[in-house]
Amino acid sequence: MRDDSRTKAWERRSELPLGVASLLFLGAYAVHVLGPGLPTWVHVVCLTVICAAWALFVADFLVRWGAAGRRLAFVRRHWLDAVVVVLPLLRPLRVVRFYEAVQRRNGRPRLSLHVRVMLYAGLSAVLLGFAASLTVYQHERTAPHATIHTFGDSVWWACSTLSTVGYGDVAPVTVVGRLVAVGLMACGLALLGAVTGSFSSWLVEVFTREEPPES
Amino acid sequence: MRDDSRTKAWERRSELPLGVASLLFLGAYAVHVLGPGLPTWVHVVCLTVICAAWALFVADFLVRWGAAGRRLAFVRRHWLDAVVVVLPLLRPLRVVRFYEAVQRRNGRPRLSLHVRVMLYAGLSAVLLGFAASLTVYQHERTAPHATIHTFGDSVWWACSTLSTVGYGDVAPVTVVGRLVAVGLMACGLALLGAVTGSFSSWLVEVFTREEPPES
Amino acid sequence: MRDDSRTKAWERRSELPLGVASLLFLGAYAVHVLGPGLPTWVHVVCLTVICAAWALFVADFLVRWGAAGRRLAFVRRHWLDAVVVVLPLLRPLRVVRFYEAVQRRNGRPRLSLHVRVMLYAGLSAVLLGFAASLTVYQHERTAPHATIHTFGDSVWWACSTLSTVGYGDVAPVTVVGRLVAVGLMACGLALLGAVTGSFSSWLVEVFTREEPPES
Amino acid sequence: MRDDSRTKAWERRSELPLGVASLLFLGAYAVHVLGPGLPTWVHVVCLTVICAAWALFVADFLVRWGAAGRRLAFVRRHWLDAVVVVLPLLRPLRVVRFYEAVQRRNGRPRLSLHVRVMLYAGLSAVLLGFAASLTVYQHERTAPHATIHTFGDSVWWACSTLSTVGYGDVAPVTVVGRLVAVGLMACGLALLGAVTGSFSSWLVEVFTREEPPES
Repeated sequence: MRDDSRTKAWERRSELPLGVASLLFLGAYAVHVLGPGLPTWVHVVCLTVICAAWALFVADFLVRWGAAGRRLAFVRRHWLDAVVVVLPLLRPLRVVRFYEAVQRRNGRPRLSLHVRVMLYAGLSAVLLGFAASLTVYQHERTAPHATIHTFGDSVWWACSTLSTVGYGDVAPVTVVGRLVAVGLMACGLALLGAVTGSFSSWLVEVFTREEPPES
Repeated sequence: MRDDSRTKAWERRSELPLGVASLLFLGAYAVHVLGPGLPTWVHVVCLTVICAAWALFVADFLVRWGAAGRRLAFVRRHWLDAVVVVLPLLRPLRVVRFYEAVQRRNGRPRLSLHVRVMLYAGLSAVLLGFAASLTVYQHERTAPHATIHTFGDSVWWACSTLSTVGYGDVAPVTVVGRLVAVGLMACGLALLGAVTGSFSSWLVEVFTREEPPES
Repeated sequence: MRDDSRTKAWERRSELPLGVASLLFLGAYAVHVLGPGLPTWVHVVCLTVICAAWALFVADFLVRWGAAGRRLAFVRRHWLDAVVVVLPLLRPLRVVRFYEAVQRRNGRPRLSLHVRVMLYAGLSAVLLGFAASLTVYQHERTAPHATIHTFGDSVWWACSTLSTVGYGDVAPVTVVGRLVAVGLMACGLALLGAVTGSFSSWLVEVFTREEPPES
Repeated sequence: MRDDSRTKAWERRSELPLGVASLLFLGAYAVHVLGPGLPTWVHVVCLTVICAAWALFVADFLVRWGAAGRRLAFVRRHWLDAVVVVLPLLRPLRVVRFYEAVQRRNGRPRLSLHVRVMLYAGLSAVLLGFAASLTVYQHERTAPHATIHTFGDSVWWACSTLSTVGYGDVAPVTVVGRLVAVGLMACGLALLGAVTGSFSSWLVEVFTREEPPES
């Protein structure tokens, strides 16, 4: 049965808990990866939080998918949510929607379109880069002949990858690390392209506004 | 004699076999390159398939070129087919047209223009990268001082080249490998540029649609 | 009390001294970094000039901020000035505004929009690259395992970073150097994107003007 | 005295000899750099051709500049010619104008704007890359710790620089080589950006034309 108003109500109520779950997921994953020397119970808590958050997202997706009238159209319109269910690495992208929801609650945003695209795409790129740094660090730190030894190296690698500079002084050597790297290149570059493109348009707009052409 | 309707009929009937031939060509080439330890008869079969597919493309081009009224205009409008006849490496681009034809048979595509450009250009980039990886791997694996030792290295190199990141931890050293690399840079970057550009436009469009400016 | 006309008068009068202060700041910083063998009093003078220029910028920002009616809106409209107060590395961007002011004093610029965007963004990129080269050189020259040994290496690194080529033959290894590098990537690439985008538009414009389409 | 018609007549008559001189200049420079083992008289002939071509360009510029009524406006409109007079490395860009003139003589070009921008910018990038390869090879081949040993290395380096991939397996180490590299980054990337941008627009145009949206 198609019930748009009920779906909308569900989405409005679930925005805040899902956003908090996203942040908890990322935080727990970061603590798990960056603190190998912490006591075992901390890691157990972290893994529990990760699994719980993942389960929450799957449940939310299933509920909304079940309530949707045209199910294929639903998946096509909410493909990001569907991808997040499969690949927890992309979960931080959900945080952008959360940020948007919080902002909307405090009154409608009054930022121009260019600034909003820059802000959201930039935020997504930062979160994606952070998640990729964590995953690559987790898989590279024990690999033989690895060049990524510390988390700082991993962040540095993610920055040089996202900006397509690619110095190559540090680069992943394991299969998992390279798969993550390819994903970061594909997603991140598109996001960065959006940021750069919006920045250019915005710059031209600012110049046009500040100095009107003499008529 | 100019006969547009007959050419169109030929193109409609030849789309499916030519698409299958493209996939067979790529598959046979991949088996030939990636399975050096396979028995000889497998390689003989692969090379036969490669040559047969090539011959098929040449024949198709000649038939359509012969049937075309204005032959120079024909070459200009179908330059991709002409290039494919000379450079089998670019044959996978033909698969995109095949994919398009299959989609059209199942009813007209309802995707927006941006999504279609992203899909086709992305698919072309993936196929080009795969073909380039195969060729580079074939020529680099036995070269002295090579940094590309496995097919995994080759795919990793193709990804870092297509995204213009270019770490340089692995890079071709032979003349053939570098020629393929230059071709991949030239073609692939343009395709990737199209994907990134479309993604940016699409992102802006989504933002515009989701949150209309307050009037 | 909101007093737009007084703010505008202040801005008009302060443009010249602030521009000179920006250039003095950058010059003094360059002398301080590039001349480690100079007598002590030269370094004392340089550091004095640096601090004085910084104080001048803080004072100017506070005066204008205090005079502004809507203070949050003021920060949002003059975010570049606010950032400059915190990060002296970005101060050279102020010089662009100075250059603009000098040009406007000599009669309104008659350059087209594309050329102006290219000019200002290019100038900003050059100044940012110069400031980043200085800072990176200062922090890398004494670091162990550093690849940046001379100021020439540092400038070469900045150029290859700004163009996103990123050879990786020289790259920062210290934490401060890498932070500056990330900043240079983020700011510089956006500026360079603006230059490239404007150049493309301008090129298309020139072609369109030079050869009108046959009607 | 301002005499537009006389200037135009001069330009029309000088196009062919200047184009030929450009090609001779590039060819003589290539022979001089790539054939260190050739007999001395060949090098003398090459250097004579180089100097003669240079003199021809200076003379042409001076004649047109002298004939122009508004001299500053003339320099601004023909800035490429002015730059070519100072930097012979950029002379190949003149060949693009020559190519255009030859094409126009054979009837007006009927290519669309996108294709023309792609063609001319691509041709300029190829010629610039070739000239930069020659110069870098000339200065790097005898430098200590150089990674560019053969002309093939130099061309490979130019390609990876122009596409902003920048592997870094070969990179200039001398001051002159790095200055040329920075120039190649600045000019070449802008040209390549124009090519990529035009290609994207053209791709979108082709898609729009081939499959009109269902109304």
